Amino acid sequence: MPSDPLEAYEDLQDVFSKDVKGEANQNLIGEVYRASCQFLAKADSQPLKSLVSGKEYIAFKFGKRLSRAVNKQLFAAEPKEWGVFCKAIASKREPGMESERITRIIYSVAASFFCFIDLTKDGDQKTPGTFFEYLIGHLFAWRLDVNPKTRLPVLNLDMEATLPTDFVFDLGPNRAKFHLPIKVSTRERVIQVWAHQRVLDGVYGTGRFLGTPVILTETKTDKKKREVIEICLPDQWRIYQMHIAQLKRITTSTCRLPTRGSMTFSLR
Amino acid sequence: MPSDPLEAYEDLQDVFSKDVKGEANQNLIGEVYRASCQFLAKADSQPLKSLVSGKEYIAFKFGKRLSRAVNKQLFAAEPKEWGVFCKAIASKREPGMESERITRIIYSVAASFFCFIDLTKDGDQKTPGTFFEYLIGHLFAWRLDVNPKTRLPVLNLDMEATLPTDFVFDLGPNRAKFHLPIKVSTRERVIQVWAHQRVLDGVYGTGRFLGTPVILTETKTDKKKREVIEICLPDQWRIYQMHIAQLKRITTSTCRLPTRGSMTFSLR
Repeated sequence: MPSDPLEAYEDLQDVFSKDVKGEANQNLIGEVYRASCQFLAKADSQPLKSLVSGKEYIAFKFGKRLSRAVNKQLFAAEPKEWGVFCKAIASKREPGMESERITRIIYSVAASFFCFIDLTKDGDQKTPGTFFEYLIGHLFAWRLDVNPKTRLPVLNLDMEATLPTDFVFDLGPNRAKFHLPIKVSTRERVIQVWAHQRVLDGVYGTGRFLGTPVILTETKTDKKKREVIEICLPDQWRIYQMHIAQLKRITTSTCRLPTRGSMTFSLR
Repeated sequence: MPSDPLEAYEDLQDVFSKDVKGEANQNLIGEVYRASCQFLAKADSQPLKSLVSGKEYIAFKFGKRLSRAVNKQLFAAEPKEWGVFCKAIASKREPGMESERITRIIYSVAASFFCFIDLTKDGDQKTPGTFFEYLIGHLFAWRLDVNPKTRLPVLNLDMEATLPTDFVFDLGPNRAKFHLPIKVSTRERVIQVWAHQRVLDGVYGTGRFLGTPVILTETKTDKKKREVIEICLPDQWRIYQMHIAQLKRITTSTCRLPTRGSMTFSLR
């Protein structure tokens, strides 16, 4: 078992797309989590000043580097919990566990690896982003028992092209199809999620793909002041929902938004 | 007169939005160009291997750093040309100059500063992007004799919000309104341009804003192999044009695309 999180991550990278829903991915995600926790045990954790009401944040420090903000209530460096979770979903795919506990486990898997990257690399946003896609992509695929695609054919009179997409899951003829963008954080790029949904609606018909993006968090840390602020703009999200396309459900740990119309915000 | 391009750029940054179309901006852009050319005179230029048919590329080298790819035919380090251009547009706003010469001047102003940044900073994409917005934004504003806005009010029943936008130019009641996204390079983020157009169409009515994005180039340089490739995906652009919104005209130095339907590609 590799004790370097990056080595475990690279193993995951090698096999991930061979069978997205496969158990090999589940085990390797566990390896990444375990090795990241081992690394973080050597780092200090420091409180940050939270300007987000009701949430506390910490950051890890190692040498001169400071990690991103971590939600204190959601984070636990307990690699065994991943094993418990995997056992719970092994037979029936829907775990008989409290949703708060599941959220904490999944958040901790992601955050521990992100912090390891923050503390060992300069300005690497890509590796955390890809790992989060692996984590959430695998869990959706496992739950639905179907592997996702990232490219769809477009046939339109004289045109023949393929459209690159985020993960899409097709449950088969006459059954639901999911459009699952997975982002650590989106900021102003969030409009892309609605734009891709619009293209899917246009090419395949409205209602064929249910847009269910997962966005980990929209916070911003001022490393000098050690302050965390929320950068979610619900009014703009509503304008996109009204004028670009309809997303079915946005899962995010950040925004506290009321349920409105067809848009449900999952407040995890 | 500052001989440090960054100092001239910071002066521009201080005054730019006070009067986007103002002559002060024109002079400061000239300063940035002059100082950048002075800097590049100390650097080497090296040929790159072009995989783009009909185009040659070079890169500047300074110490261990290599700049981005520069289109050899379009680039000239001739700060005096900016003065000639400014004189030509001083009285009648439409210069009596060949369009090839204008293109070369504007391209050189942008590219010289970009290369200066590439050779003196690590991974700074923001400064070139903002400078390019200043350059093209000023020229449009000068030409239209109106300053742009970057925020529009949205009034919709119980909602009252403002929408942040790229530059929009409003020529007054019953006259054209332009939506002018300005990007050095977009890659997969190009979909944002159509998405913003869709929001403008939805909020204010289709046809009220003419979408006229300016995208400098869609090339990618493999610094190890010293190769330049084109990364424009015209088939995807067409899908966006069909399914998200209609842009009026895309100005770019990269894609060689036929004119189709309502989309004109300016092949500069």
